[in-house]
Amino acid sequence: MIEAGTVPPPNTLRLKRMGIDSYQEPVLYTRRDCHVCLSEGFEAQSRVEISLEGRRIVATLNVVDGPLLDESEADLSEAAWRLLRAQPGDTATLRHPPPLESLGHVRAKVYGRRLTPAAFDAVIADVAAGRYSDLQLAAFVTACAGERLDLEETVALTRAMVNAGERMRWSDGLVMDKHSVGGLPGNRTTMLIVPIVAACGLRMPKTSSRAITSPAGTADTMETLAPVELDVPQIRKVVDAAGGCIVWGGAVRLSPADDVLIRVERPLDLDSQGQLVASVLSKKAAAGATHVLIDMPVGPTAKVRSAPAAEVLARQLSLVGEALGMRVRVAHTDGSAPVGRGIGPALEARDVLAVLRHESNAPGDLTQRAVHLAGELLEFGQAAREGQGAALASAVLADGRAWRKFQQICEAQGGMREPPRAPHTLPVAAARSGSVISIDNRRLARVAKLAGAPKSPCAGIDLLVQHGDFVERGQPLFVLHAASPGALAYAAEYARSQPDTIHVVEDA
Amino acid sequence: MIEAGTVPPPNTLRLKRMGIDSYQEPVLYTRRDCHVCLSEGFEAQSRVEISLEGRRIVATLNVVDGPLLDESEADLSEAAWRLLRAQPGDTATLRHPPPLESLGHVRAKVYGRRLTPAAFDAVIADVAAGRYSDLQLAAFVTACAGERLDLEETVALTRAMVNAGERMRWSDGLVMDKHSVGGLPGNRTTMLIVPIVAACGLRMPKTSSRAITSPAGTADTMETLAPVELDVPQIRKVVDAAGGCIVWGGAVRLSPADDVLIRVERPLDLDSQGQLVASVLSKKAAAGATHVLIDMPVGPTAKVRSAPAAEVLARQLSLVGEALGMRVRVAHTDGSAPVGRGIGPALEARDVLAVLRHESNAPGDLTQRAVHLAGELLEFGQAAREGQGAALASAVLADGRAWRKFQQICEAQGGMREPPRAPHTLPVAAARSGSVISIDNRRLARVAKLAGAPKSPCAGIDLLVQHGDFVERGQPLFVLHAASPGALAYAAEYARSQPDTIHVVEDA
Repeated sequence: MIEAGTVPPPNTLRLKRMGIDSYQEPVLYTRRDCHVCLSEGFEAQSRVEISLEGRRIVATLNVVDGPLLDESEADLSEAAWRLLRAQPGDTATLRHPPPLESLGHVRAKVYGRRLTPAAFDAVIADVAAGRYSDLQLAAFVTACAGERLDLEETVALTRAMVNAGERMRWSDGLVMDKHSVGGLPGNRTTMLIVPIVAACGLRMPKTSSRAITSPAGTADTMETLAPVELDVPQIRKVVDAAGGCIVWGGAVRLSPADDVLIRVERPLDLDSQGQLVASVLSKKAAAGATHVLIDMPVGPTAKVRSAPAAEVLARQLSLVGEALGMRVRVAHTDGSAPVGRGIGPALEARDVLAVLRHESNAPGDLTQRAVHLAGELLEFGQAAREGQGAALASAVLADGRAWRKFQQICEAQGGMREPPRAPHTLPVAAARSGSVISIDNRRLARVAKLAGAPKSPCAGIDLLVQHGDFVERGQPLFVLHAASPGALAYAAEYARSQPDTIHVVEDA
Repeated sequence: MIEAGTVPPPNTLRLKRMGIDSYQEPVLYTRRDCHVCLSEGFEAQSRVEISLEGRRIVATLNVVDGPLLDESEADLSEAAWRLLRAQPGDTATLRHPPPLESLGHVRAKVYGRRLTPAAFDAVIADVAAGRYSDLQLAAFVTACAGERLDLEETVALTRAMVNAGERMRWSDGLVMDKHSVGGLPGNRTTMLIVPIVAACGLRMPKTSSRAITSPAGTADTMETLAPVELDVPQIRKVVDAAGGCIVWGGAVRLSPADDVLIRVERPLDLDSQGQLVASVLSKKAAAGATHVLIDMPVGPTAKVRSAPAAEVLARQLSLVGEALGMRVRVAHTDGSAPVGRGIGPALEARDVLAVLRHESNAPGDLTQRAVHLAGELLEFGQAAREGQGAALASAVLADGRAWRKFQQICEAQGGMREPPRAPHTLPVAAARSGSVISIDNRRLARVAKLAGAPKSPCAGIDLLVQHGDFVERGQPLFVLHAASPGALAYAAEYARSQPDTIHVVEDA
């Protein structure tokens, strides 16, 4: 008795790109009344499996009423376009995702039970494959926070995270690495440490990140001098040739579950020692490190706030590192001020070059910090005796060996280049004479971003004064750099509206 | 030295409506390069306070690249439009939200500490005001899951939830209420219980929900017979006049934090007795109930799976209810099959009317269930002696008192009307002769939604057979109802593609 009619269309929709960035969560946008939603029973916030040419991802559904999409169209968030490697006009198939069995382990952890290594493997494999929604990730992160992971569980979680991604393997011998816990703004020591350490014969394949909320990440800064998007075989070639590299970690899938978990850990801001240890060490183990130096700033505003807390964390890093075949050494550094003078990729690169070339205007704080940490690594890797690492690092910087090694690394990564110079600059002057009593780093970072950093690598701020300096009225405090007159004027207006960013007080 | 120029625009953007429904989470969409994002440092996933004419909400930012929005425009998710009471073209101001101090309590709970009543008050006030992101809600829900709330904390959470919303207050005397734990599809007993109980002189102001994922909620079904969107003064008037009401709970802000928490509890699907108790009882306490009957289906596929589990839950409901000044009684019912014959608002209303009018085609299962639960309420409210409630309920149904009371309630709510009839119907016939061995309720619900329920109140399914019936080939199994020929054909095609929705097996 059913009338013959058109067969319901298969569960496909045509992809249209609207350009919505829901951070890293894959989101699918469809019309509320599209045929797939109706026939499959998809609703706002349903989890939907999207497949395209054999690739599959799971996304959260946001339904749209109104003219943005028609009934045969779907949009994806930027993360979903990327993961699915889709193009506008592609036809994607939508289905109910298979049941997420590993959520049972998350529930067990929520209810206070210990998890086995196999349970962590199952959870982390699904996390790395993007099968968890942000809410499910938040539940897992919360269930593991505080002191809820014991040492064995932390080891199991770390191993699971390593196993869920690519691994770099190296020939016998030491592989040095470093990590900063809660990094400082403008802290470009990595670009100095790698050439110093490599110049002393130690191997150091370093992956770094791009800026997330700052005006520049190490990968952004390095990219103004040489290519940084290398794959694993290319990285191996560079390290075989030059002993070290400074590349973007995002181009290789080392511990990809870590990147997924971090996107919910950051906004939740829970103290979770087990997850911190697993995050740091899984990346290092996946990179094939044998010796890991942890730069751990301790202070009231730092991530680690007290000496006892630092002690506990250092001990757990060592034990978990050992279980994964790595030696871990912790260096305590000062965590108060930004380092160097430039803010923005090219301006920070210029600071690094000034130190490497031993120029008279090289920022002393950056040199000092790099020498300290490189010294620790040299002692750790037995390229220097205990207590003599910093002296060796200093000598290698002074006699040009580090500079030559840096050039060699850049050439091996694809060719060294000059950092771009901003076509538009504008000095911002002191409104009165007096002493600089404070510098607001967060506002300076914002000015640098208004000027275009890190998207315009040449953009940013060149800081001309330091805390405690005496300045005359009208004397430049910093110089704005920008790629366009508009961005320059815009950053300048903002700077003018925040006159205390560099706070000058008349002397009594 | 800064050039004079245009002052940066204030932190305002013009609202444009694209119609994106991110479920209930308020989301703000802006261009990544809009001036507010640049000057405030907002990034994808930033929390942003949006204010408009004194109203403020906090939303999560999704940034957009491309032509959807220009630099001076912003869009809101549907939840945000609603909460902000904004209109397209309004100019909203964007700011960093004030720090969310109550998150400290969530962290304390994550780390395993007990929370004080003041801590729950602070958290729940922020939750009800929409200041928590979905991730933060997930962390709170996870931290309170399992057995993590003790009795005192559950009482404190319930009180905090009541205090965060409106409260209905009644003159002295009993105020009856009921709640189903994990309700059944098609279970429209509420529309029978209220008139029966009110006809026996007990007061029963009942708020119900609309469909979330089902083809009809009680509020949707009731709305085909009378208005249901009443505010608190209107509800009071109806109950004063008729002794009871059946209205939509969404129109009054009773325990609004519960609605917020439920949107993350549902997808996480964690067992959390404390939260279940707080959710149920906060709504009832806010509605001013003195006597609450809990309909608790127990069974392997129900929310409550075993008799001991039911026992523990019942005890906690009683104790927390008592602390809030309510008496709680638990009725165990069978939780296996759907109830009634219609699926969809008007068709379910027709079943209810058939029972009330004592018509010959009234579904017996619906009558039976309503009589059982109404009987429990009558005994609980001392309108009948123990063991005689069901008989009284049955008599009140049989002699027309319940039907007259129902009409009185509908008139008081704004006027009784006939449920709409679908202009297009189509019987779906058995493909073979044999016995009905199973009915797939989930698929039937999907067919009803394809036909247009609950958006088209007349749409849905009229089920003509029951489990165990013998049918002849070509005999109609159910009739599809739809508002348009397109929806009818579409639902019919889907039904044809799923021939086992009503599974008929030839007798051996």
